[in-house]
Amino acid sequence: MVGATGYAGSELVALLARHPHAAFAELYSGPGGTTVPFAALHRSLARREGPAARPLDVDALLEAAPDVVFLATPNEVSAELVPELLDREPGLRIVDLSGAFRLSSADDYPAWYGFRHPRPALLDEAVYGLTEWCDGEGDLSRARLVANPGCYPTSVLLGLKPIVPLLDAEAPVVCDCKSGVSGAGKKTELAYSFAELSGNLRAYGAGTHRHEPEMRQQLGLASESPFVFVPHLLPAVRGILSTLHVRLARAVAAEEVASAYAAAYATHPLVDVYPAGALPDLNAVVGTPRAAIGFCLLPAGRGAVVVSVLDNLLKGAASQAIQNYNVMLGLDEAAGLM
Amino acid sequence: MVGATGYAGSELVALLARHPHAAFAELYSGPGGTTVPFAALHRSLARREGPAARPLDVDALLEAAPDVVFLATPNEVSAELVPELLDREPGLRIVDLSGAFRLSSADDYPAWYGFRHPRPALLDEAVYGLTEWCDGEGDLSRARLVANPGCYPTSVLLGLKPIVPLLDAEAPVVCDCKSGVSGAGKKTELAYSFAELSGNLRAYGAGTHRHEPEMRQQLGLASESPFVFVPHLLPAVRGILSTLHVRLARAVAAEEVASAYAAAYATHPLVDVYPAGALPDLNAVVGTPRAAIGFCLLPAGRGAVVVSVLDNLLKGAASQAIQNYNVMLGLDEAAGLM
Amino acid sequence: MVGATGYAGSELVALLARHPHAAFAELYSGPGGTTVPFAALHRSLARREGPAARPLDVDALLEAAPDVVFLATPNEVSAELVPELLDREPGLRIVDLSGAFRLSSADDYPAWYGFRHPRPALLDEAVYGLTEWCDGEGDLSRARLVANPGCYPTSVLLGLKPIVPLLDAEAPVVCDCKSGVSGAGKKTELAYSFAELSGNLRAYGAGTHRHEPEMRQQLGLASESPFVFVPHLLPAVRGILSTLHVRLARAVAAEEVASAYAAAYATHPLVDVYPAGALPDLNAVVGTPRAAIGFCLLPAGRGAVVVSVLDNLLKGAASQAIQNYNVMLGLDEAAGLM
Amino acid sequence: MVGATGYAGSELVALLARHPHAAFAELYSGPGGTTVPFAALHRSLARREGPAARPLDVDALLEAAPDVVFLATPNEVSAELVPELLDREPGLRIVDLSGAFRLSSADDYPAWYGFRHPRPALLDEAVYGLTEWCDGEGDLSRARLVANPGCYPTSVLLGLKPIVPLLDAEAPVVCDCKSGVSGAGKKTELAYSFAELSGNLRAYGAGTHRHEPEMRQQLGLASESPFVFVPHLLPAVRGILSTLHVRLARAVAAEEVASAYAAAYATHPLVDVYPAGALPDLNAVVGTPRAAIGFCLLPAGRGAVVVSVLDNLLKGAASQAIQNYNVMLGLDEAAGLM
Repeated sequence: MVGATGYAGSELVALLARHPHAAFAELYSGPGGTTVPFAALHRSLARREGPAARPLDVDALLEAAPDVVFLATPNEVSAELVPELLDREPGLRIVDLSGAFRLSSADDYPAWYGFRHPRPALLDEAVYGLTEWCDGEGDLSRARLVANPGCYPTSVLLGLKPIVPLLDAEAPVVCDCKSGVSGAGKKTELAYSFAELSGNLRAYGAGTHRHEPEMRQQLGLASESPFVFVPHLLPAVRGILSTLHVRLARAVAAEEVASAYAAAYATHPLVDVYPAGALPDLNAVVGTPRAAIGFCLLPAGRGAVVVSVLDNLLKGAASQAIQNYNVMLGLDEAAGLM
Repeated sequence: MVGATGYAGSELVALLARHPHAAFAELYSGPGGTTVPFAALHRSLARREGPAARPLDVDALLEAAPDVVFLATPNEVSAELVPELLDREPGLRIVDLSGAFRLSSADDYPAWYGFRHPRPALLDEAVYGLTEWCDGEGDLSRARLVANPGCYPTSVLLGLKPIVPLLDAEAPVVCDCKSGVSGAGKKTELAYSFAELSGNLRAYGAGTHRHEPEMRQQLGLASESPFVFVPHLLPAVRGILSTLHVRLARAVAAEEVASAYAAAYATHPLVDVYPAGALPDLNAVVGTPRAAIGFCLLPAGRGAVVVSVLDNLLKGAASQAIQNYNVMLGLDEAAGLM
Repeated sequence: MVGATGYAGSELVALLARHPHAAFAELYSGPGGTTVPFAALHRSLARREGPAARPLDVDALLEAAPDVVFLATPNEVSAELVPELLDREPGLRIVDLSGAFRLSSADDYPAWYGFRHPRPALLDEAVYGLTEWCDGEGDLSRARLVANPGCYPTSVLLGLKPIVPLLDAEAPVVCDCKSGVSGAGKKTELAYSFAELSGNLRAYGAGTHRHEPEMRQQLGLASESPFVFVPHLLPAVRGILSTLHVRLARAVAAEEVASAYAAAYATHPLVDVYPAGALPDLNAVVGTPRAAIGFCLLPAGRGAVVVSVLDNLLKGAASQAIQNYNVMLGLDEAAGLM
Repeated sequence: MVGATGYAGSELVALLARHPHAAFAELYSGPGGTTVPFAALHRSLARREGPAARPLDVDALLEAAPDVVFLATPNEVSAELVPELLDREPGLRIVDLSGAFRLSSADDYPAWYGFRHPRPALLDEAVYGLTEWCDGEGDLSRARLVANPGCYPTSVLLGLKPIVPLLDAEAPVVCDCKSGVSGAGKKTELAYSFAELSGNLRAYGAGTHRHEPEMRQQLGLASESPFVFVPHLLPAVRGILSTLHVRLARAVAAEEVASAYAAAYATHPLVDVYPAGALPDLNAVVGTPRAAIGFCLLPAGRGAVVVSVLDNLLKGAASQAIQNYNVMLGLDEAAGLM
């Protein structure tokens, strides 16, 4: 596992440490990183035995012959590291938590990520690991490279995908999303200081956030389709609440919408569907590996509101990586997460 | 002034205490209320001399012959008190901070407010006091009864009204609004406790909040028009940030939108318009009597996002009441507020 | 388990649900309580199977013949319930999380707890369950009734007991303690609302808090000894940080103090001792079953400062109850907690 | 005014802008600073006319011939700037908000502030501006250089000075102080990020904080006297609450202590004294220029607890600077602050 010292990375270390079927081979803090004792990576790990996170050493990593390598590294680092690892050890399996392999077209990387993609061929190979929507018997079980979804896309896609057939295709879907600040990673900018964020709220990145093309791609929407994504920064540490404003193609009973969600997630233990009219709050999921989804129908205009919540560091990052790992190895999807 | 002990009422007392052209006649805590010393009403008032807030005594209030009576009382209380005061003293002028006189049709009160309106005729007479959109030379200066707008409607209407001519009338306007908890008043329910709200966020009242008919009425929208209002409760004490998702009728340059806002508010010192592409955060206005508005155009589908922020207890309640008072008396709109 | 719906009780349910050697017999919400589905007791429990918490039914409870009964009930309820249970089933073993059996003298109950103690004899029998300071081979393993310590006393006693021999007995120990608001339980008073607590801090109960006689008793201090305890309410949900200001009897090297702590806790995995000069913060323990302790020596006057932190709902309540349960049954002290 | 862009500096700008007897000559952002528009310095200033804050230009500053220069600059900057200004314009009067002229002995600067003091003679001349304890007719009215007190010392000294004659001189005074994070200034370190501070509390600088020698000096205590100062960082933006644990020299009635406070502050409108037994919380003073003080006597050991609160950016910095300015110029002490 590489990138063990960031917020998502340290959550992943904590989850792996409790996983009944996983054992650490090596922990790395990423290229240029420092050595951090195991117990200092996450407060739940104190006094538990485990390896320190060391600066990345690819030779040592490959020598340890891990079943699966987790990368919780910056986009640019993953983009370089994944090809290097797969070139040297073609049988390796990788779950990458960055955005480096989430978009299917290399053409999108310069504009949205700020770098030319070093290995476009791997974009075709990578499986987009929104676990509940992967064909577990196929995709993930054979995947060599899994692109773990972004936190906002996980929240939005889990809420929208079951009801796409019910939507008015002409009407825009408006995704008004609110995230706790840990989503920004370990930032030292003034904008992320307690003094600036406490009691504050701000919208940012409307129309320019790199999670937008990821969502459009997974929903099959062209870049000119009317899809709106506006993220906001909450005065909270963890969690994403996405309010999804949609218009239905026809008058639909609440039961029909509820059935669509139930059908999608009945066999997936880590997505909770609320009864019609009940909307989950952040507290329902923060600190857990679960997403929760609720909706209500509006009296006018065939409108509906869907609220989808998750913990951005867990279901939006680390615990979804574990879900993907579980399906890759043929384990129960929720192994180590309940 | 009646209702001096609530959050909005105590802000109003603090503003009146500093107002260069106002002097307190009497302060009341509302019917059935208790006596609260002046200095205990608001922390900015300590040791300053002023009257205690006493349980409401209508005789004493009328005897004091105030120019203007402010009511920061619950909806049902205002609905009864306003007719009583105007019946006994027809020359009295009232600014009512409740919702009792905001809707123009008495038919809407049972469904949205839970009571039959006791004096429908006053709904016709009441002037809706969104100060910047009142015709100051006319409406407010002659008004006997001013219905001070709700906090959410103030935020939404200030953001939308200047650009209504630019909007696609077919497309829904989606108002995704987030409010600090002081908007709920001095609540002792578990749902408003620190333990339940800290780090939390929840959507509530989608399609059922009583501020929705108020907004529709002021925008001239029928109840079946596709207008969406979803409020959320923030882990913050004060402030409302409304994210308004709109679709423009035609391709429009940012300058044209900016001009519409500039034209609307150039002569109104308490609404700040941000440059195109810049969105205000809550910190920009919390603790101030100002609203701030920003917008950005989206690359796809003629969409635009407007962000409108204000302090729910000030521009969303108490300081707007002062603005209305100022215009009613022919003072400068911002007197006592800068 | 009785009292499953409070903050500490629901944490206890979550811990028991994960415990490798415990199985629920029955869950009760307390006398006069309501029925709450298992999954609604704690967010970590969603979709996990388990019994609903029902209003207390003593007959059913005894019929289920549990090994150990946990009571997370109010002081007065525990004071009545424990004698009733032990009278009807003398072989029962009880861990009581309330204060009903913590003080050794029945004379102290009217003044500090506001009720006459119904069964003083049980005060003699009760074992004070500060796990790390119980003689596990003796006290707890044979105890029928364990009084689980208060949250503040656990924090203070863990920090002070190892260095009592080093202290100047003439000088007062000053315990300046700060607690998150969940320590007050599910309170609906205005004082615990988000609007009143956010950004606030207040001292309360100086010289009058009922945890003070509990600490004095465990430290062997008479009521006239100069011992100071001032609790404060933090704008945080969970955690207690106790700053303990002490004076040493003689000039002592930091190593000697460090040795005293190391000796006390070397074999106890749930108390972390920090190196001399390093002080733990709340984040180090919130959400974990561990306490952490650090100290530094002051340059003047043989003073020292000890900082002791824990999660008030876990090590200060529920997880310490599990520790006691583990020792009672001869299990590893940390079973189900790592 | 120099240093207008920091947290305390921008509060000072906002206060000066409202001051009835002050007019800005020039605003500077400090040496090496940037130009910041007036309205961007503080949210209360929007659209109000005033000069931008420019990088420091000493020639221009002196040319403007201000009555009083305020410095809200770092310690090292003030230490160099004050001598330069007074050398070039001996008639200038300066209020310095830094610590550069608070300690009376130049010998203390290397150890506590990390630099050799460039002009020890000015340490003798500087008046320590704890306004309520200055002899207004003498010291401040003639002072050329006023050292504005630190935020913690202001809080501690206001609480202790009135009762020094009542204290047991042998017993240590324990000052357990808690501050909001704005006290650290505009910090971009991870330790001050929202993600690290929310819900957290930490003690720091026990025995090593540079405000300790400032307090000892003002209380006339030698460095080996048993005086304890432990600051803590609160999850709050503004405010200091100091819990002062003292021992009285003899048994004293609460009335006698209350009288001591009343005598000290009866003529000072910006210090509120609470009735015996009532302790102020942070909310009572945050956002105001006032301090508030309460105390209670403990039942055992002649102990007492004093709680002293203030807003660290106002009474702990900017508004106290205004108080000093007012007294320097013979104005009412509270001019521009009520």
